[in-house]
Parts: sequence; structure tokens; C-alpha cells
Amino acid sequence: MKTNRYKGNPIITPKDIKPHREDFEVIGVFNPGVAIYNDEVILLLRVAERPICKNKEEFKAPVFNFPKGEIEILTLNINDESYDFTDSRVIKDNIKKDGSFKYLTSISYILKATSKDGKNFRIDEKPFIYPSNQYDVFGVEDPRITKIEDYYYIYFSVVSSKGVGVRLVKTKDFNVKEDCGIIFAPENKDVVIFPERINGKYYALHRPVPKCAGNPEIWIAESDNLIYWGNHKLLLELRENMWDNGRIGGGLVPIKTEKGWLELYHGASKNNRYCMGAVLLDLENPSKVLARSEKPILEPQEDYEINGFFNNVVFGCGAIVEGDLIKMYYGVADTSVAYVELSIKDILNSLR
Amino acid sequence: MKTNRYKGNPIITPKDIKPHREDFEVIGVFNPGVAIYNDEVILLLRVAERPICKNKEEFKAPVFNFPKGEIEILTLNINDESYDFTDSRVIKDNIKKDGSFKYLTSISYILKATSKDGKNFRIDEKPFIYPSNQYDVFGVEDPRITKIEDYYYIYFSVVSSKGVGVRLVKTKDFNVKEDCGIIFAPENKDVVIFPERINGKYYALHRPVPKCAGNPEIWIAESDNLIYWGNHKLLLELRENMWDNGRIGGGLVPIKTEKGWLELYHGASKNNRYCMGAVLLDLENPSKVLARSEKPILEPQEDYEINGFFNNVVFGCGAIVEGDLIKMYYGVADTSVAYVELSIKDILNSLR
Repeated sequence: MKTNRYKGNPIITPKDIKPHREDFEVIGVFNPGVAIYNDEVILLLRVAERPICKNKEEFKAPVFNFPKGEIEILTLNINDESYDFTDSRVIKDNIKKDGSFKYLTSISYILKATSKDGKNFRIDEKPFIYPSNQYDVFGVEDPRITKIEDYYYIYFSVVSSKGVGVRLVKTKDFNVKEDCGIIFAPENKDVVIFPERINGKYYALHRPVPKCAGNPEIWIAESDNLIYWGNHKLLLELRENMWDNGRIGGGLVPIKTEKGWLELYHGASKNNRYCMGAVLLDLENPSKVLARSEKPILEPQEDYEINGFFNNVVFGCGAIVEGDLIKMYYGVADTSVAYVELSIKDILNSLR
Repeated sequence: MKTNRYKGNPIITPKDIKPHREDFEVIGVFNPGVAIYNDEVILLLRVAERPICKNKEEFKAPVFNFPKGEIEILTLNINDESYDFTDSRVIKDNIKKDGSFKYLTSISYILKATSKDGKNFRIDEKPFIYPSNQYDVFGVEDPRITKIEDYYYIYFSVVSSKGVGVRLVKTKDFNVKEDCGIIFAPENKDVVIFPERINGKYYALHRPVPKCAGNPEIWIAESDNLIYWGNHKLLLELRENMWDNGRIGGGLVPIKTEKGWLELYHGASKNNRYCMGAVLLDLENPSKVLARSEKPILEPQEDYEINGFFNNVVFGCGAIVEGDLIKMYYGVADTSVAYVELSIKDILNSLR
């Protein structure tokens, strides 16, 4: 399958972002939501920053103090055996040993960037969405954007010690935002909302992470107002001994094609190598899977996809679709944004 | 506080139930949902059965095979170190060691019982709700019943290897049932739906169990059709060093009082001692907590509450409210059903 990566990749890197605090450094700008507004490409970038830490015996964890309205920095001793510092993304609880995290190593917010040519972006200085309440004291992550009629619906993970859920805001102009609250309670992320009603109902893919039984897999839910969701059904499962045997979740907003709804999702192996795959869902009944890619349609191959803050990640949250072309902006190695063009026809032909 | 336990407790025990298969034994009849229908008390009992196992080296796990439509029995070797058999309720994964379960030791279904005097029950022979699909192959558990206008809404945990979620069915006559699908995706249980709209919206308490961060605590959600739910908010947290420091979840359908919505919830300590507590929620805005009980309003004290299939459990899912009186039917030690009368006034006076 042709995957036309842009020669100038990565198109946005941490060097392009000024930290929003002088004592912080930008470690990642990645996983953008994508939309067209006023004939320009809008990216809602996830920016991850961490406190600059010069003492190698220390680990600094940023936490938003929501009544105070500012980030506080917790200093942890790297020799403290109650913590597990081996994952670059999270500080785990070494006492519980159940895989749960105590803190994140960085805090993410959402930043807007705008482009006329889709390659060169003007990046805002001030955050577009910033932590603001008890549910996002560890940050806001991985936005997706679905345009329905006059509104852009923007939804993203909110992370706190109470869990990871998904919040929805809507806007007409990427300026005034209306909060619609948490649409999927913890633990859930990787929501993608379909861009139109299907037989009168809205649909979304979501990815619960249950504790006592079950895997991080893709479910589908329906709604009549985009805020309240129900009739949950399991849609797509992990596949043993394949590239998506560790965790899967929605990626791009589903694309309507003649053959069905085409969803480009992410799948990680048990070794945390993140690829993108495709699944085709019935046009009239999107809880019915018609076909699924055997092999990834995009996988970490280039240096910027292999090496970074978290290695071996391609992670698409949004794209512009023009005819047969999917112009995808995707996160690479939890560090930067890259651009690739994919053919819908090619993808459909590759599915089984 | 006065807690008038019925002298004839427990009122229903496993001996009162005939196993639905000859090769099974009933180990529990407990945690009933409660309603009044045709001037009679209806209990929807959770019945737990397990395959009779005479070989002490073996453990038999019952699993509903949903395409076949019948329960299959998996035989496990008790010396198999990939399993942890120490919890009487579940068989855990001894390789993952993350607390997740592989199988349950019993399979639950829901059985209807009817009474004119509220003490002596005629118990149906055939299950009222039985496992029927991929989401409940390990059973259906802990029903609650909310009556709203003409319908009785019955909702209960569905348990499978894909997780624990909550399904809703509705009925007018406890005979013809309409399925409304899974209203809360895994992992979630202990849903209680308020008995009327509040400022135009329906509300429910629910209890997600997130994996990567967060605790088993009580959240509140809203709906406009009882099927789709959103605007999730954290309502009630665990309390360190108190009787409800391990896990909490909704118990009875909330009771409307002059002071607010009174919710009797269950709380377990880290040592799995299950008590009932109370919380008072604002009449106009039930996501606002007005008061909460410092001490349990009911705790395991009697022999039938202390000793059983799972020791030290009082667990209320339903009650009949008459004036100041809460006539609660509650599960004891995951084994039997007991009856207690509580005074709303007493409970309200005890709250802080």
C-alpha cells in the first residue's frame, strides 16, 4: 500500500513550541485533532511539558491545583521504592503493583495551530484548552474533532488521580467554547464521534479499560444529543499473535465511503509498538464489522516514528479527506507531528 | 439508631431454591431488587449456583455458552498455579497478578418471588432473567428496580470475560420485558436510577472501576431517556481509615425526603467487610452532597450476616418505603435474604 509520507516530516516538533512556563520544557507536540475552518487547516495539538529537572536523583511531577488555578510541582526521590519510574510517560505505584499510575511525568494541554497550505503552521502562544478542574489535574490529551452541521465537537481525554475520562466541548469558531461535560466516565479514552446521524442516531467508538476483567478494546455507543451515550456494544477485539494484541482504540473520525464507514484505528502490540490499522463498518449499522486490516496500514518505520519520548509510535487522531485522499496529521513517538497521504481505495482493497 | 431486624431472619435461604440443573447446587440467594406490583411485594432475587464438585483436586467453573444457549462447565486443577483460588467468589489470574479474574466460582441468574405479607414468598421455578448473550456468560447479578410512571425499570450487572457492565430492561407487568441494552459500559456496576425527573432530567448513581488510576467510587450521570447517559460527575469518594475505605457503590433506589434525596449505599473496608451507609443529596441538584453518615447505619452483626459464602456482608439493593419506614430486603453474607426496618427520620438525624 502506498503511504506517501511528507518529505519535510516531522512538520511540527517540540522546538517549534515555546514552553508556557519558564521553568518547563516541551517534550512533545503530537496527536492533533484536525479540522478545516475558514479554508484553513486547524490542528489542535497536544503539547506535553515537564518541569526542568537538573538533579538526577529527583523526579518532578507536574499537577494542576484546580482550586488555585496553577500547576504545582511534586518532587520525588528517584530512589523511593514506592514508585516505579521505568515508563517514560507515567510514574507507577510500586506498592500496589497493579499497573496503575500515581502521577504523569508531564502535563498536557491543547494548543491551536493554523495553516493555509497544510504544511506550514502558525502556532498560537496561549493554550486553547488547559487543565481547569478536578478531572484534568494531570492534563488534557489527544483531541479529536467532529464537525456536525454548524458545530465543531472537540473531545479529549481528561486525566486525574480519579481516572481517565473523555470531555466534550463544542465551538462554532474555535474561539467561544461551550462545555458539555464528561461524556464517557473513567476509564475511557480514544473516543471518535461519527460525522452524521445514522438512521436517526449519533454513534461513537470508545475504548473502556476495565479492571476486574476485559481488555482495552473498541466499543460502540449511540446517542441522540452527543452528550448522553448508551446501548454499548463491543465492536473490535484484540487479536492474539498479531500487531494489535496489546490495546486498540479509535483513531480518526470515521470516513464515509461507498463500501462502508472506514475507521483508521490504532493498535499496539504487547510490547507497546503503536501502528494504525483499518476497519470497515456497515453504513446503515456501524456496530457491524465488514472487514479489518490484517497488516498495519501505517507502522513506525522512519527515524522520527521510531525514536522519541516514547519509541515506536504512529498515532493518528485526525485528517482532512479530499476525494480518495486521506491527509493525515499524526503523532510520532509521542514527540512530534508528521503528515502522510493515504488512498481510501488502496486501504479498502487491502481489507479482508 | 434503631435497626429492627426481623426475628425470622433470614427470610429466604439457599434451601428454599431448587437448583435449575440437577448437577448444580444453590450457594446463594441474595441482593434482591424490590418493587410493589398488584399490591404484592416482588423480589427479584439473585440466585448463585455452582456445579456440584466431589473431587477436592478440582474446581468447576460454570460459563454460559451463548451461541449454544447452555452452561458449560470448565474443570480446573486446584494445583494449577496459573490460577488463584483464594477468593470464594472468583478465580483470579495468577500470572497477571493485577487482581483481574478469569472465571467466577458460580453463575448467577435472577428469580422472581412474590408475597402478600412481605415475609412469606412464593418463589418462581423458572429464572426471570437468565444469561443470554456474550456480555453475561458469567451471569447476571444484583438487580435494582425503579418504577417510573407505568414502567418498572430493572437493571443489573452483566458479567463476562469482557468485563462487568450494566444492562437495562423494562416491564409493565413483570412478564413481558423490553431490552434496552447496556446502559453503562465496563467496568461499572451498582447503578441506581432516581424514581423521577429532577428539573427535567433523569439521574443515576453508578460505580465505575477504572484500571490505570482511580478507585471504586460513586459517580452521578444524567439522561433524558434512561438509556443514554452522560455529564458524569464524581459524587462520593472513599474515606481513609473509615469503614468505607475499600469500595463504595449505590444500594437502594434514592428515597425522596423533605431534606433531600436519601441514598443508602454500601461501603466495604479494605478487608471486605460490607456495611450500609447513608448520603443525603440536594433535592434540586443531586450531584450536590449535603451530608453523609459517619458510622454505618447497618453492619454485619448477626450470625447470618457474618457467616456465609462470603463473610461479613450486608448489601441492600431495594426496599419498600412507607411513610417514615424503610422496609429493606438485603443480601447477607452473599448467601441469603434478610429483612430490616429503618426509620428515615433516625437516619437523617444521624447524618453530618
